Amino acid sequence: MRGAGSPRLLLFFLGAKGRQFGSGHLQLRTAAMAGPEWPSLEQCLEKHLPPADLREVKRILYGKETRKLDLPDTAFEAASEGEFELQGYAFEAAEEQLRPAQTVRVGLVQSRTPLPADAPVAKQVAAAHRRMEAIVEVAAMCGVNIICFQEAWTMPFFFCTREKLPWTEFAESAEDGPTTRFCQKLAKKHDMVVVSPILERDTEHGDVLWNTAVVISSSGAVLGKTRKNHIPRVGDFNEVSCPSDDQPSSLTFPESLWPIEARNAAVANHCFTCAINRVGEEHFPNEFTSGDGKKAHRDFGYFYGSSYVAAPNSSRTPGLSRSRDGLLVAELDLNLCRQANDSWNFKMTGRYEMYARELAEAIKPNYSPNIVKE
Amino acid sequence: MRGAGSPRLLLFFLGAKGRQFGSGHLQLRTAAMAGPEWPSLEQCLEKHLPPADLREVKRILYGKETRKLDLPDTAFEAASEGEFELQGYAFEAAEEQLRPAQTVRVGLVQSRTPLPADAPVAKQVAAAHRRMEAIVEVAAMCGVNIICFQEAWTMPFFFCTREKLPWTEFAESAEDGPTTRFCQKLAKKHDMVVVSPILERDTEHGDVLWNTAVVISSSGAVLGKTRKNHIPRVGDFNEVSCPSDDQPSSLTFPESLWPIEARNAAVANHCFTCAINRVGEEHFPNEFTSGDGKKAHRDFGYFYGSSYVAAPNSSRTPGLSRSRDGLLVAELDLNLCRQANDSWNFKMTGRYEMYARELAEAIKPNYSPNIVKE
Repeated sequence: MRGAGSPRLLLFFLGAKGRQFGSGHLQLRTAAMAGPEWPSLEQCLEKHLPPADLREVKRILYGKETRKLDLPDTAFEAASEGEFELQGYAFEAAEEQLRPAQTVRVGLVQSRTPLPADAPVAKQVAAAHRRMEAIVEVAAMCGVNIICFQEAWTMPFFFCTREKLPWTEFAESAEDGPTTRFCQKLAKKHDMVVVSPILERDTEHGDVLWNTAVVISSSGAVLGKTRKNHIPRVGDFNEVSCPSDDQPSSLTFPESLWPIEARNAAVANHCFTCAINRVGEEHFPNEFTSGDGKKAHRDFGYFYGSSYVAAPNSSRTPGLSRSRDGLLVAELDLNLCRQANDSWNFKMTGRYEMYARELAEAIKPNYSPNIVKE
Repeated sequence: MRGAGSPRLLLFFLGAKGRQFGSGHLQLRTAAMAGPEWPSLEQCLEKHLPPADLREVKRILYGKETRKLDLPDTAFEAASEGEFELQGYAFEAAEEQLRPAQTVRVGLVQSRTPLPADAPVAKQVAAAHRRMEAIVEVAAMCGVNIICFQEAWTMPFFFCTREKLPWTEFAESAEDGPTTRFCQKLAKKHDMVVVSPILERDTEHGDVLWNTAVVISSSGAVLGKTRKNHIPRVGDFNEVSCPSDDQPSSLTFPESLWPIEARNAAVANHCFTCAINRVGEEHFPNEFTSGDGKKAHRDFGYFYGSSYVAAPNSSRTPGLSRSRDGLLVAELDLNLCRQANDSWNFKMTGRYEMYARELAEAIKPNYSPNIVKE
């Protein structure tokens, strides 16, 4: 992350969708495949496994158990009234003699777009702001210090349409666009850092569009921004934005990859990762194809939520629901990062000079891999 | 992989152990934690989940379902007689017009060391050879083309002891040591490529020890070798061997990382990965400590097996048992690698020049990360 604070908290903002089963509003599902109504892996395991087996399965799937956070009743009541899920967990680190615990509460918000994609742009943005305002109120009750929203949170995930207008009108200035100004108010009101991933319009560089996470400090200042650097071109992910030199990318749209990539990154980099996905189905006014040989359709499939936090010691929280809006509160002791670093010793034993050299070799136009054949 | 054939099949040879609960032969387990007798994640889920839920859980945990291979009855009988598990699965790729399917059957062997660690070195090696010979016979019945053994397969995983003799006597020449000669015979007899990870003694470079995978072609020739390049220093993994410039390393000893790392590597590199772990408990003659504040002991904990194959499309096979010797046969259509490559487009959209440049910067002694603080 460039210009945006701690390297110990990586964020994965993902558009991670379930399979497409039909077209338009009519979802034709096969009997073999549950849709978004299948609530979550965790709920299924908890319903069916005997306690001793559940403990083993969770140990293998989630690592060292996270402690359930004792969040205020008023927060649960407000979440229930606002029709979103609330869960909270704590990751603990070993006590140290010279460093106090560096405890921070992170909030991850997964949500559906409140208005249909064909509503006027300004109304969609305003509705997303209102919805987020309500959820962040609850985050504040839970003592959240850093609140993180999903990728392109003010808009439908329109990249699948490959259309420009009206969608490019969702792009805003990262410094003083309406969404940044909204987040600055939130940050000051709740004394909270806000990570706000938007589609950025950069007029300074000739109206370039970027996929940008804006980081706003608790004082309300724009602390920095990171722009996604690896823009994928796969299936319906045809982003209009430009690849930047900042934020790494991540793309995990088969659901079987969702529990994998962010956890691997947390361990490999000795940091916490927050994997945030949206929920719900988004329908577009004009039909489009997905390059998969299937008929033209107007929907993107459903986004399967399941947002979670992963720790450098290979543990993770359970995920939020696959279909409901939700707030996941995670208490992190950042001391765990250096403890994992000292335990694994990757930076002492890793062969970074060699990797840099080999990578530099491999990208040369005349590179030829050394393959031995008999 | 340098000098060792296809870049499309990565092998993870792992010493992946369960937690230590006591010392010596007496295992003092807490009620909260099952030991190696807890058979496997898959068996637990299959026992308790209703079919529709099981299908969803498997889809999320394992991706696109692998087809069960129809292996010969004689192979299952021989495996049962030899007291090891046998499982077989196939990964399928889409049919192409111009390339025929590139089908190859890979065999993964997980096994315990047949003799106690204090038996004479030559006897331990000979017993490991005999055990492997029997398992490879069954692999041949199953049409396996490439057979892969676990890391340091002829010896107990002695690195925890930090002792030299007698353990360094397990090191052999990769070109003409007894284990390579044994594998050459196997390869010729069964027309099978053998991947044989051993502790290598390299007299050409002044008696250096390497952690080496020797690749023997089906004609019996040593096709090449790869030497582990990232030698971890964590817990009981204090390898005596030298870091090389060849094979990347991997270390996943919390069981919660086992399902993560090899799958992430398969997807990120568009290749198949074979994650092979050993099983059983190994007890050493002299007591040792593990740097974890616990009392001196003579065992390494148990190795939890669970070997599996992961594919570039994020699917994987179920794992072998957590405690039994086993042979996992996986039929791979290597066309899936290029299909995944073309689908994800990582090499076209990845920012490799930037990664090479940033990595080269980051390893400079005077490097200072750009961290913005308010």
